Amino acid sequence: MTNFTKDVMHVGEMASGAALTVPVYRLKGDSTAPSVYIQANMHGAEVQGNAVIFQLLELLRNTQVKGDITLVPYANPVGCNHKNGEYTLGRFDPITGVNWNRMYHFAPEMIKPFVRESIGKDDKTIEANFKALMIQSIEQKLNHNIFGLTTGQRIAYQLQRLAHQADLVLDLHTGPISSKHLYCPEYAKESAKHFDIPHTLLIPNQFDGALDEATFCPWWHLQEAFAELGINFSISSASLNKESFTVELGSQEQIDLDVALEDAQSILSYLQYKGVIDAPEYQAKPMTRYACMLKDYKAYYSPMGGMVDYLAEFGQPLPAGEPLARILRMDNYGDGDPLHYLSLDEEVIPILHFASASVNQGTELYKVFTKYFTL
Amino acid sequence: MTNFTKDVMHVGEMASGAALTVPVYRLKGDSTAPSVYIQANMHGAEVQGNAVIFQLLELLRNTQVKGDITLVPYANPVGCNHKNGEYTLGRFDPITGVNWNRMYHFAPEMIKPFVRESIGKDDKTIEANFKALMIQSIEQKLNHNIFGLTTGQRIAYQLQRLAHQADLVLDLHTGPISSKHLYCPEYAKESAKHFDIPHTLLIPNQFDGALDEATFCPWWHLQEAFAELGINFSISSASLNKESFTVELGSQEQIDLDVALEDAQSILSYLQYKGVIDAPEYQAKPMTRYACMLKDYKAYYSPMGGMVDYLAEFGQPLPAGEPLARILRMDNYGDGDPLHYLSLDEEVIPILHFASASVNQGTELYKVFTKYFTL
Amino acid sequence: MTNFTKDVMHVGEMASGAALTVPVYRLKGDSTAPSVYIQANMHGAEVQGNAVIFQLLELLRNTQVKGDITLVPYANPVGCNHKNGEYTLGRFDPITGVNWNRMYHFAPEMIKPFVRESIGKDDKTIEANFKALMIQSIEQKLNHNIFGLTTGQRIAYQLQRLAHQADLVLDLHTGPISSKHLYCPEYAKESAKHFDIPHTLLIPNQFDGALDEATFCPWWHLQEAFAELGINFSISSASLNKESFTVELGSQEQIDLDVALEDAQSILSYLQYKGVIDAPEYQAKPMTRYACMLKDYKAYYSPMGGMVDYLAEFGQPLPAGEPLARILRMDNYGDGDPLHYLSLDEEVIPILHFASASVNQGTELYKVFTKYFTL
Amino acid sequence: MTNFTKDVMHVGEMASGAALTVPVYRLKGDSTAPSVYIQANMHGAEVQGNAVIFQLLELLRNTQVKGDITLVPYANPVGCNHKNGEYTLGRFDPITGVNWNRMYHFAPEMIKPFVRESIGKDDKTIEANFKALMIQSIEQKLNHNIFGLTTGQRIAYQLQRLAHQADLVLDLHTGPISSKHLYCPEYAKESAKHFDIPHTLLIPNQFDGALDEATFCPWWHLQEAFAELGINFSISSASLNKESFTVELGSQEQIDLDVALEDAQSILSYLQYKGVIDAPEYQAKPMTRYACMLKDYKAYYSPMGGMVDYLAEFGQPLPAGEPLARILRMDNYGDGDPLHYLSLDEEVIPILHFASASVNQGTELYKVFTKYFTL
Repeated sequence: MTNFTKDVMHVGEMASGAALTVPVYRLKGDSTAPSVYIQANMHGAEVQGNAVIFQLLELLRNTQVKGDITLVPYANPVGCNHKNGEYTLGRFDPITGVNWNRMYHFAPEMIKPFVRESIGKDDKTIEANFKALMIQSIEQKLNHNIFGLTTGQRIAYQLQRLAHQADLVLDLHTGPISSKHLYCPEYAKESAKHFDIPHTLLIPNQFDGALDEATFCPWWHLQEAFAELGINFSISSASLNKESFTVELGSQEQIDLDVALEDAQSILSYLQYKGVIDAPEYQAKPMTRYACMLKDYKAYYSPMGGMVDYLAEFGQPLPAGEPLARILRMDNYGDGDPLHYLSLDEEVIPILHFASASVNQGTELYKVFTKYFTL
Repeated sequence: MTNFTKDVMHVGEMASGAALTVPVYRLKGDSTAPSVYIQANMHGAEVQGNAVIFQLLELLRNTQVKGDITLVPYANPVGCNHKNGEYTLGRFDPITGVNWNRMYHFAPEMIKPFVRESIGKDDKTIEANFKALMIQSIEQKLNHNIFGLTTGQRIAYQLQRLAHQADLVLDLHTGPISSKHLYCPEYAKESAKHFDIPHTLLIPNQFDGALDEATFCPWWHLQEAFAELGINFSISSASLNKESFTVELGSQEQIDLDVALEDAQSILSYLQYKGVIDAPEYQAKPMTRYACMLKDYKAYYSPMGGMVDYLAEFGQPLPAGEPLARILRMDNYGDGDPLHYLSLDEEVIPILHFASASVNQGTELYKVFTKYFTL
Repeated sequence: MTNFTKDVMHVGEMASGAALTVPVYRLKGDSTAPSVYIQANMHGAEVQGNAVIFQLLELLRNTQVKGDITLVPYANPVGCNHKNGEYTLGRFDPITGVNWNRMYHFAPEMIKPFVRESIGKDDKTIEANFKALMIQSIEQKLNHNIFGLTTGQRIAYQLQRLAHQADLVLDLHTGPISSKHLYCPEYAKESAKHFDIPHTLLIPNQFDGALDEATFCPWWHLQEAFAELGINFSISSASLNKESFTVELGSQEQIDLDVALEDAQSILSYLQYKGVIDAPEYQAKPMTRYACMLKDYKAYYSPMGGMVDYLAEFGQPLPAGEPLARILRMDNYGDGDPLHYLSLDEEVIPILHFASASVNQGTELYKVFTKYFTL
Repeated sequence: MTNFTKDVMHVGEMASGAALTVPVYRLKGDSTAPSVYIQANMHGAEVQGNAVIFQLLELLRNTQVKGDITLVPYANPVGCNHKNGEYTLGRFDPITGVNWNRMYHFAPEMIKPFVRESIGKDDKTIEANFKALMIQSIEQKLNHNIFGLTTGQRIAYQLQRLAHQADLVLDLHTGPISSKHLYCPEYAKESAKHFDIPHTLLIPNQFDGALDEATFCPWWHLQEAFAELGINFSISSASLNKESFTVELGSQEQIDLDVALEDAQSILSYLQYKGVIDAPEYQAKPMTRYACMLKDYKAYYSPMGGMVDYLAEFGQPLPAGEPLARILRMDNYGDGDPLHYLSLDEEVIPILHFASASVNQGTELYKVFTKYFTL
């Protein structure tokens, strides 16, 4: 029986003075294995990750844990509780419009001076120093700011401070209406095979504000900066193992505890592969795993306003010319074309589509893998 | 081949001066049969009715039409186009919060004077006069108002003016996530058997602002006022046939043209039954049709905040004590009860549930038939 | 130096499990005088009342208090914290659209049985019994509901339970952009002269869901029910003194602590008049006090969409034909009329106007006193 | 008397099929002077620019116009008409959260090839070719996109296509609650003295998606690329005159036609200075004009949640340590500190503040000039 501790982290205040808090669960390993940070629900409507953390905690109680594991459900108490009509308006700060998952911090200019100071040190020392530097950089942001931080930065930085303490980071999200898919750094694609997720996006070493990038890009930049000096510092070695994933669990606005159990098992397969737990019963399922490069992951914007009957099945290759969707335009009935079929000129794999039938011209209708391949 | 005409009705103006318009389709019968008014999408997210009107127009082109039919998709151009995040905020005026389907007009005080003047007249004259009175009352509202009308009243009254010209009125709605069901006046319950809809709510003679009520309550009050004087004036006779329904087509935020074809066929079954069309191929399907009185249609409000895994199947009796849903409360994990099962003490039929997993204490979780019976 | 106690009342839970709480301040009198309940910020954007409660607490510390006083700022923790863009969307539940100040409870059917049981009892006993009955009725609602309560009812009922314990109730609101005005029951119009508020609306004995009505209507109905039996039971006597007001403090989205001090002094003038405090330095200022009956308080809805330059000064009679506002319609420039002046055919006193220049056709532009008189 | 033409530009479609249109007014000069593009209301709540365009058209009717002038009010028909509660949610796309004024286009990689091809050509030819290139680049975006454009890009690109045809570009905005101020490219600071605007922000050659940047940055990059080759190509010469400004007219949600007349006169002063009109009566007023570099224009984020009484006067230097605002925290009354004064350690000029008293921890409270100087 593995024990856990629970803390409540204060991440902000509302206008009434109400505190914004986030629960933090910690399982203690024996420090011989990589440590893990898992959070869920940074986007308000993407709630399934909370159920996955529930099932993870249930399963981990009876699992031999070797690496420290930190779990944070309800990571964003503003987004999580913000309703507009029946739905949760949780992709962006309702005041500013800024995407909650674009507010993490990475200052690449810290890499080169650090490398210069680190030459000749051993990998474990470099790792410890760099981890300390990243945490210190975040704490500097949190504690020494004359003009203040935005609401979202304050939340993001406190989560990031926890994440930087781990080797492996999983940020649990969902799409709008979506198949399961995984954002994976290019160098870690072997690991993608150890999740029960049939679609993987391979992402480059570019920081765009998300948690996965904020936690793997610094290490990747570090590796590259050493490599430029002809020094091997590998972040995917046996002893150093830095990986971050955004795990897209399916559709938003839904909790399904049974599916969450499968997703928890999928994550435990990965943790077993990484040696974080000692539970060989968790093994990834055999399946065809499609992948594409992030630059080939295309958003298709609606060429017209109208009401969409989504047709394309998720996760399966859709031949060129086959319809993605048809759009109803009743205002054209009788004196125009009331029904439009939409297709693409190349074969794609549809991954997700917009959450509503009603779209404006220019609404993001589908996201699709192009130039996909199998892992 | 039946022809139709198309008009565009101006129902309002936005701040930029942009006109709010609604398309109106009319099929002309031979005036020997009841006339029909069908509208869709008064609530912005409830879009499936537009697809049903599309399929109705497609089917009616090859159908012998005896009664006049007016069809109005996109009935509410404000609600239809109002997004908040990805979803359509279309149940209520975003400025005032007033439900768009609670702004129709009925002034019961017009009944008694009308009855006094009508004594001794024949039914057809009374019918024509009362129809004229209702239309005049609406036009008075539209055209002679010193202090003006609200945005929603102006839209509703113009739709109502069209609806009053018909004998049979169908207002196409959907629930949030919902089974198909029908709001039907108590006196018209025979007609409910002629739709392919397994659940019927029988509603009393009370006006609460909705279109169905605004069109059947005046006639029902009229019948009752004559009856008080011992005069028989039947609104569900062979020659006089006044019925209004709110048809709940399923879930919101979705268009499915194939399901819409089934729904159109279901409506044509009803119109065939009423003699509006001459197309005996349209017959209602045999099915168990459950009903309950409106007062026994219960909303169940969430006893706690949390994230809901909806469990109960729609449309089937759920035994007392069986779970409707379970609520995840991760904040309680470790020092409280993280999972709560919700059930009721009596057998019910779940009809619809809330559109999102995230609920506050007091969010309307389910609506259920209690004390149900079969039609 | 008067002491106060502070409690925190739990009124609900959000989806994350976060508790919704409301602070409750209580000052204890010597029970010889009427007791008072004051709340603020039931509508989220109407925040000035919180500042008034701050100033009241500051002033009352050095005031001789004879009647119990309960003060509740931040009465609605959902509305208070709900942003959409920069503004606070706090007039209605963002999920349902229901106005937060239309969810209080009054069941008039409890009056007649209570009167029958009370015949022959003395006024003080009747008062105590009726107060107990109202509180019990609310507690029944709160604690014995199989199908639950809405989020807003749960908040409203808990506030109402506190309010029923007091003789005098003040609900602090604001208009959108507004002059100061007061909602006052017709029977209490003498009291309106003891606030520093130049405009008073006299309201009848009709319950429409607001807190003031929920607290004075039951007493007024009781008085009337006794009067029907020829029994005098006066609710505005020396010994029985039941009054409720909605105090509209000016414009929403603003806090001004200096103005709040004036408003607090105005409220203390009223409390001094009622004997709740012993502080003769608080006296209402001489001023012309305009009043009108609620039925003559007219909303003027915009006859067109456009952008409004509000012209009429608040609080002063505006002659018939003088412009309330002019509306810019740039889309008409060059081929229509780009500027429209709006006026009324009768003299009115403009009290408030809409919060934004951008209006749809049918937006509530102004509210005005018609057929006004001086108190 | 100067004539104008009016067109209606189609910029998109809503879900109902409703067309999004924008009126375009054009005055024809004699082509001897710089041409001008002026638009307003790209952010929905920032409506005063429409009134300024109204007054400009009124004034220009009686003005000798030498350069072509294009005026576009209501530039963003989505933002302009999007209400949430009483206010206009118009800073960002309500579906995606993306700021409407961050979607313009500039591809700096087009500069170098263009410069290589242009060596040896005369300035007027280069100007004409570069203008053509920019317009072609936008038209390519508009017309040749397989995966489509976002709603905001489609609007922005069509406006930008008009703007690229002009030499001088004015984008009329407002702050939330704000003083008048001007965004001005560093190289054009002389021109800032010809507006009646007391505060100027000098912005560098960095493209961040706004219209002013999208229209001056390409020219500035061009000038710099020539300069790197030792070629003088001046964009602020007598014959070539490329300037773009964002004019912040004051506060949002307001129309004031009298103030708009002053603002129109201010713009005509600038146009007179540039030779666009021949109307020497339009001369900028003498005033102290403060300026600061964009990097020294600081946002101050609220250090706590609460309700803000804004204290600092706009436009005047505020000494270090003097309060910007005080924040009420009634939840702390009795057991904490209910009133907090906020100040800065350096002298600043407050330019604008947040639109509401209710703020979360991290809400942008004020924007201030630091390290300011006079022009």
